[in-house]
Amino acid sequence: MAMTPKSEYSASELATLPHVVVVGGGFAGVSTVRKLANRPVRVTLIDRHNFHAFLPLLYQVATAGLEPADVAYPLRTIFGHAKNVRVRHARVSAVDQARNVVVLQDGNEIGYDHVVVATGAVASYFDIPGAKTYAMPLYTLANARRLRNRLLRSLEDADVAAETSAVSLNFVVVGGGPTGVETAGALSELIEIAVRRDGLRLDREKVRIRLVDVAPRLLTAFPESASTYAIKELRSMGVDVELGRSVVEVEQYGIRFSDGERLDAAAVIWAAGVTVAGTLASHLATKIGPSGRALVGADLRVDGSENVWSIGDAAAIADPKATFYPQLAPLAIQSGRHCAEQILRVLRGEATEVFRYHDKGIMATIGRRAAVAKLPHAGVIKGTIGWLAWLGLHLWYLVGFRNRLRVLINWTWRYFDWPSGPRLIVADAETAP
Amino acid sequence: MAMTPKSEYSASELATLPHVVVVGGGFAGVSTVRKLANRPVRVTLIDRHNFHAFLPLLYQVATAGLEPADVAYPLRTIFGHAKNVRVRHARVSAVDQARNVVVLQDGNEIGYDHVVVATGAVASYFDIPGAKTYAMPLYTLANARRLRNRLLRSLEDADVAAETSAVSLNFVVVGGGPTGVETAGALSELIEIAVRRDGLRLDREKVRIRLVDVAPRLLTAFPESASTYAIKELRSMGVDVELGRSVVEVEQYGIRFSDGERLDAAAVIWAAGVTVAGTLASHLATKIGPSGRALVGADLRVDGSENVWSIGDAAAIADPKATFYPQLAPLAIQSGRHCAEQILRVLRGEATEVFRYHDKGIMATIGRRAAVAKLPHAGVIKGTIGWLAWLGLHLWYLVGFRNRLRVLINWTWRYFDWPSGPRLIVADAETAP
Repeated sequence: MAMTPKSEYSASELATLPHVVVVGGGFAGVSTVRKLANRPVRVTLIDRHNFHAFLPLLYQVATAGLEPADVAYPLRTIFGHAKNVRVRHARVSAVDQARNVVVLQDGNEIGYDHVVVATGAVASYFDIPGAKTYAMPLYTLANARRLRNRLLRSLEDADVAAETSAVSLNFVVVGGGPTGVETAGALSELIEIAVRRDGLRLDREKVRIRLVDVAPRLLTAFPESASTYAIKELRSMGVDVELGRSVVEVEQYGIRFSDGERLDAAAVIWAAGVTVAGTLASHLATKIGPSGRALVGADLRVDGSENVWSIGDAAAIADPKATFYPQLAPLAIQSGRHCAEQILRVLRGEATEVFRYHDKGIMATIGRRAAVAKLPHAGVIKGTIGWLAWLGLHLWYLVGFRNRLRVLINWTWRYFDWPSGPRLIVADAETAP
Repeated sequence: MAMTPKSEYSASELATLPHVVVVGGGFAGVSTVRKLANRPVRVTLIDRHNFHAFLPLLYQVATAGLEPADVAYPLRTIFGHAKNVRVRHARVSAVDQARNVVVLQDGNEIGYDHVVVATGAVASYFDIPGAKTYAMPLYTLANARRLRNRLLRSLEDADVAAETSAVSLNFVVVGGGPTGVETAGALSELIEIAVRRDGLRLDREKVRIRLVDVAPRLLTAFPESASTYAIKELRSMGVDVELGRSVVEVEQYGIRFSDGERLDAAAVIWAAGVTVAGTLASHLATKIGPSGRALVGADLRVDGSENVWSIGDAAAIADPKATFYPQLAPLAIQSGRHCAEQILRVLRGEATEVFRYHDKGIMATIGRRAAVAKLPHAGVIKGTIGWLAWLGLHLWYLVGFRNRLRVLINWTWRYFDWPSGPRLIVADAETAP
């Protein structure tokens, strides 16, 4: 079997190649398939969406800074050039390891030689009453659209109510990690624009954004100085940072804390943590990792299996120094590449290699011109330089030149505060008038 | 009362000004309010959406050529600079002329000195069984998104079905006017990209687009030569043009014709004609115009009223030469401007003037590089020149520089056939995975 990349296989050649099925088109799944494109395997990539979404920027879609098409890219378009890759728009209900088939929710089955489970993560609600029903997570493009509609509608309603009485409005962001910090900052900018440019009759002082976390500081994965900086920046943007507070209940338009305080809230945004998405990853082996993740060996194969792999947020990958590697986008990408290489090695009859994560650092933006980055060897970068680094890195990783160009235009607009922006409320299930 | 434009009124000055309520933020309503901005009136613009949508390009959103934010612009952003304009995001249930109040669906009431009803048009189904339930119109941004999801899902499903059997797919466009012609052409381009660039395993020959109309030719508002040209261009793009055919029933995935033929259809797109939107316009006077439109006098006041006006698609406006003016975007814009001027005249105690439509011509695009335009004094323009004229005109009329820039980028991409585009299926009511 030739191992040099080959740009095209004929249909009959393809049929004889080993079949790799990749479940999930996020960072991990897409980087796996990219490595397998035009290699001597047949690949089927299955996702319940027809696009790859750039999750780190979903909060921008939710706060009306970017459009869905800016942060998402059709999977078929990414792999349209690779003749050995098939994209299947479907939901997977099970991996039947006894028969080596993936079972789809519509009842169809797809046989595999190797299967890669890259089903990612969803918000974790820690069994807090009401949280799953009423809190608004940011894990899919649909989540982001729904949150955007909620935010804009709240502002519209408050504008009407302001005609007859004094209005106060709370938005609560639960979780002081990067997603929570970024969402709170962007939300503050959205309200600023709505009041100053769109002329909503709201008293900016009466619109409170509360960023709450049970931890004693923000951004616990960063050094202490990053937390201090983020708190200072957020406060200057009018965000109340409330630390050491835990949520005991979420209502449709309210929230209750363990200290007894109850608050009306126009929206409770949930950025408190993640757990494994769906049931696929946790059913791959008898032993499972933390929060239901698939426990994998050093080569990323599921514990005890020869041809079942798991990567990205769906997998618990042992870190030689600590317990498990953190759940980050660069880790998902690197684990995807490694997995693809190991599958090719196994198919060639070679021994697999141990996965090592190369730390690229972590970043969080707080608003225009303010961000923090922790780089592996350079310490912490803050302020405008941090923001430019954040911007450059995110642009770089967006799939497709057009997306980068459009995001750059949108960001430039927002940076200079031109009075435009996709602040559209497009109803979810609207009927004819 | 000063009649020179004034850039800003104090709150106390505003309260003493006459109140003009405009219902509807389409071409007609927006052009009325633009003329009234910073004039000696208080204006409230009410719309059930928080944005103004550029309806002539909705078919581009439906066929994944443009994004919603490319063709829509927040009303608050358009009028944020005008201190005498208020935007209200609400639905209107009635105009109570006895009490001079507009009644909102939420029960609130808004008093007026003058009211302008610019509620526009919706698709007309001519009481054809099933049409209202199953046919897909293109009159709102939500319509366009729903149609896009349906089109892309049909192609995905066909790709899966093609694994096991030969697949044929029909898309039916009902109505041979500009909307039907433009949609059929753009749909053909979408399928072309899906097959050639995204690698969908469909036999292009088995995917039929059928453009049907009961009339003996297309584009009846244009000269015969435009119809001949459009038919030739559409056929070269693989669209079946079927004239003299009438639809007797629409099913969820099918259509029946008067000649007895029944066809499976992945989508039935409805571009067959319009009728008045909602019930507001038809309840303004005892006498009503064609298809429920408000019958207005030469100055655009509703028959028999002193302070109730109707404009755009909601109104039946007498044409001195024919019966009524056609329902077109330029007419909506011109009638909005005229209405605003007449309200100011009435408030100054002056006599009103007769509305005259200045014909700017009509246009329809068939695909990249092909369009027809009928200009008032220059006859018919066809081909690439027509397409460039169409492009320039549509760009010009888009609200906001950023929208123009983004549409230009999207069109340029599409024109040169770069393998990108917002072909995303974003579910309407998606739940967590």
